[in-house]
Amino acid sequence: MRQKTFLLPTLRDIPSDADVKSHQLMLRAGMMRQNAAGVYTYLPLAKRVISKVEAIVREELEAIDVQELTLPSLHPSELWQETGRWDKMGDELIRLKDRHGRDFALGPTHEEVITSIIRDAIGSYKKLPLNVFQIQTKFRDERRPRFGLLRGREFIMKDAYSFHDTEESLDDTYQAMYRAYERIFTRVGLTFRAVIADSGAMGGKDTFEFMALADVGEDTIAYSDTSNYAANIEMAAVQAGNVENTNPSVQLLPVKADDEIIILLLGAGHELNEVKSLHELQVKSLSTLNDQEVQEAFSTEKGSLSIQTIEGYRLIADQSLQGASSFTIENTGDAVNCTELSIDSYADLRMIQEGDASPDGQGTIQFARGIEIGQVFKLGTFYSESMGASFLDQNGRANPYKMGCYGIGISRTVAAIIEQHNDENGIVWPVAVAPFDLHLLTLNSKNEEQAELSEKLYTTLKQSGWDVLYDDRPERAGVKFKDADLIGLPIRVSVGKRASEGVVEVKVRSTGESEDVHIDNLADMIQTKLQELSNV
Amino acid sequence: MRQKTFLLPTLRDIPSDADVKSHQLMLRAGMMRQNAAGVYTYLPLAKRVISKVEAIVREELEAIDVQELTLPSLHPSELWQETGRWDKMGDELIRLKDRHGRDFALGPTHEEVITSIIRDAIGSYKKLPLNVFQIQTKFRDERRPRFGLLRGREFIMKDAYSFHDTEESLDDTYQAMYRAYERIFTRVGLTFRAVIADSGAMGGKDTFEFMALADVGEDTIAYSDTSNYAANIEMAAVQAGNVENTNPSVQLLPVKADDEIIILLLGAGHELNEVKSLHELQVKSLSTLNDQEVQEAFSTEKGSLSIQTIEGYRLIADQSLQGASSFTIENTGDAVNCTELSIDSYADLRMIQEGDASPDGQGTIQFARGIEIGQVFKLGTFYSESMGASFLDQNGRANPYKMGCYGIGISRTVAAIIEQHNDENGIVWPVAVAPFDLHLLTLNSKNEEQAELSEKLYTTLKQSGWDVLYDDRPERAGVKFKDADLIGLPIRVSVGKRASEGVVEVKVRSTGESEDVHIDNLADMIQTKLQELSNV
Repeated sequence: MRQKTFLLPTLRDIPSDADVKSHQLMLRAGMMRQNAAGVYTYLPLAKRVISKVEAIVREELEAIDVQELTLPSLHPSELWQETGRWDKMGDELIRLKDRHGRDFALGPTHEEVITSIIRDAIGSYKKLPLNVFQIQTKFRDERRPRFGLLRGREFIMKDAYSFHDTEESLDDTYQAMYRAYERIFTRVGLTFRAVIADSGAMGGKDTFEFMALADVGEDTIAYSDTSNYAANIEMAAVQAGNVENTNPSVQLLPVKADDEIIILLLGAGHELNEVKSLHELQVKSLSTLNDQEVQEAFSTEKGSLSIQTIEGYRLIADQSLQGASSFTIENTGDAVNCTELSIDSYADLRMIQEGDASPDGQGTIQFARGIEIGQVFKLGTFYSESMGASFLDQNGRANPYKMGCYGIGISRTVAAIIEQHNDENGIVWPVAVAPFDLHLLTLNSKNEEQAELSEKLYTTLKQSGWDVLYDDRPERAGVKFKDADLIGLPIRVSVGKRASEGVVEVKVRSTGESEDVHIDNLADMIQTKLQELSNV
Repeated sequence: MRQKTFLLPTLRDIPSDADVKSHQLMLRAGMMRQNAAGVYTYLPLAKRVISKVEAIVREELEAIDVQELTLPSLHPSELWQETGRWDKMGDELIRLKDRHGRDFALGPTHEEVITSIIRDAIGSYKKLPLNVFQIQTKFRDERRPRFGLLRGREFIMKDAYSFHDTEESLDDTYQAMYRAYERIFTRVGLTFRAVIADSGAMGGKDTFEFMALADVGEDTIAYSDTSNYAANIEMAAVQAGNVENTNPSVQLLPVKADDEIIILLLGAGHELNEVKSLHELQVKSLSTLNDQEVQEAFSTEKGSLSIQTIEGYRLIADQSLQGASSFTIENTGDAVNCTELSIDSYADLRMIQEGDASPDGQGTIQFARGIEIGQVFKLGTFYSESMGASFLDQNGRANPYKMGCYGIGISRTVAAIIEQHNDENGIVWPVAVAPFDLHLLTLNSKNEEQAELSEKLYTTLKQSGWDVLYDDRPERAGVKFKDADLIGLPIRVSVGKRASEGVVEVKVRSTGESEDVHIDNLADMIQTKLQELSNV
């Protein structure tokens, strides 16, 4: 592609409204422009990267026989009412009326639509398992769209849905998708972790989120420094039996669990993990009491809660306190013998901390921030049951499909790649997703020898099968170098003063190493270097 | 792909709600399902065809350096207000409000969005010409969605937009796109005509519509039986000098042209062409008077209009009447000498008819029905002027961009291909867009020899690089043959009773010819036949 007429509006300055690196660099490198809050145009350079990511996703999914289809973006409201999500989704679901006043949603996800299709199309266990995917624009009206492609209102997703007759079949596909995701994210050049995540309210079961590690990530991951273990911090179990001394200091934490007020006992310095506690206490809602609620329930202030004032309430202690024979109540300083407290039960209530033993028994917990780029999810039968989607089994009995769903944020993945692959001068693309393989520069396009050699190389390098961006602009060499670093193609080939000898400079963007090479050896050298870079 | 678990829900019966062949066949062949009026799911078989059409479009556009990007579907209303189309588009434009109450449109076309991007991104004649395209889901709230993919509310389009500094540059790109469209529609197997079309109200100039010939088409095309000439019937000029006798019978037609009532004189049996007449009379609106308006203006009934009653009104005659020395007024039977009428001017006012001489002087006009599958359009400066999008020319002066736009209905093209390629048994895919190249059938999957040979062929045929659909279902041979004809892959390979000898049957879907072949010669034969079919 000739850069002279390539739509590549690079910017010198960092845009003031972009807070994170990927957003800044995509604007500066002429990859995208904003059309409205959280709504972007992907310019040709970005489109090329997106296409390469999509091709890798397609390749890995087709390799395990996932079938591509395209579901519509306009969803009749009736479908979402069948599962109750028309009301549950709130403002994030973009709604509209057609000319006849009928209600539609703009699809943020497609469980309802695919379930309605399969409900009518399959019918027999003989056609199972089925696994289908699509790559498509999705819509979600985020309250605060931000960070460029990391949290937009219109974005590109790969979503897949699988249908099964047995739990084993669902698990097979779930595992196969998990492994495909590992291959996909590895191939696009990401450092990531598959973390145990919250299956939420929709009756789902197992779920892993794939997180690209990055400081700007909105999620905190707890991971083992020696094993594969990783979990969303809210899902990380804490090993029992961590009492560090025989008389630990503890805090009394009054909470409302569904409609009952109970007292939680946590070690001093420990933080309540509400997500885990919901599961452990088997309740639907859990909230710590505010000052007024404490006053009403205990006729005293939070800071004055004591063994005496909480008498009569159910008392549940964090499991790390199990085995301690006495405690010091943190806010009152009272020493309490264990027998004075009637602890009803012990449970895993607290947030894991850095330095804790890993729950899998291997290594120590570290924290990292992550960007969610994918998720695999066993949905179970929530959608098939609420929508009446069933198949006939071998005995002719109707059963609801067991379902899985599997998402990858394509546009977000592109942003995550940039978050992980940049330096002070710009983007540093991994070869597999680079918009072009090579950046060919004429340093002085008025010099005939340079122009002529550049034209010749442009032709021959393309013929060798590489994608070449050819900077044929009548700009100064300094401008071209700066843009080349900003755009960050893996290999730069500069045609300069030694053109007359047939010598050009080859520079590797990621390492900064450069050397002069005769054009007779250029193709071999590029081949070798791209190979090396791909193997990193 | 193994058909046993391929999502391919074929239907035996013709769905009652489908009126045209392509709609019926896409439902019956398990290619699509309706989600709402004019809103469809493309099942895997259709998705494969769409991908092949898209690949051909991409290839031909990239060959002439059109750059791919992706514009958003959510358009802030402000952009559409800049051109006045927010009001003009009426109910066809799907509108919605975001959570903050801001107005958005769902893009049916992207002139406003791309112009806003280029307005900020380019700025200099040095970066021109620019030509960008995208392939994307579009939305249009049709009053009467019908005929399946031929008139839907959510559909796939390729749209391209070009920007230029000179009329010559625009014309170069316009011609290049025209030729690319010819190649694209030829390659996907369509019989089509490029027809002269109406540039409408948006200040555009030249425009051609690409029409796939089909009886179900909503447009009538007038074309020459010997030359390339073709035009939308409303745009077809009529050759002057067609007076067939010296005393032709004529009709008096009172019309309101803008605010003036004038009398048009047309040959008997000729029909007024309002679109052409608007241009010829250089007015903005034109309508024939109704009975009441005639009564008010002429104090008589339509049938009683005579030379006397219309006295004083401007009289414009169809050019075919030029040269006649006398007329017979059709409704009164009065004979009128030409000198008695003060005809102000002659113009091309009437609809062309079958049998007329072609306007290009070559051959005779025939009519055909067509499906609009593409359009090339010189937009001129309507969008750039109304949105203030300008570049600096060589003298540093600001000029509005000259623009072109170029559309292809991708999903509609798929339907048009089926309209042209089917028989009483189902679809007959052209090789270039067939969802698979080969259909491999095991006629009796319980027979071990057949099953074994089929599995072996499935592997080797795929290794040869062909897309193979493998009917491994435990169905009767008759069911498999029926489905194979319905789905319509170019070549069917049936493994039946002669499996033990290593002999299979090869059948060509389009010609019906079949022959037995030994598996040692199978690949060569398939190669030859696909080659022959591709050259048709």
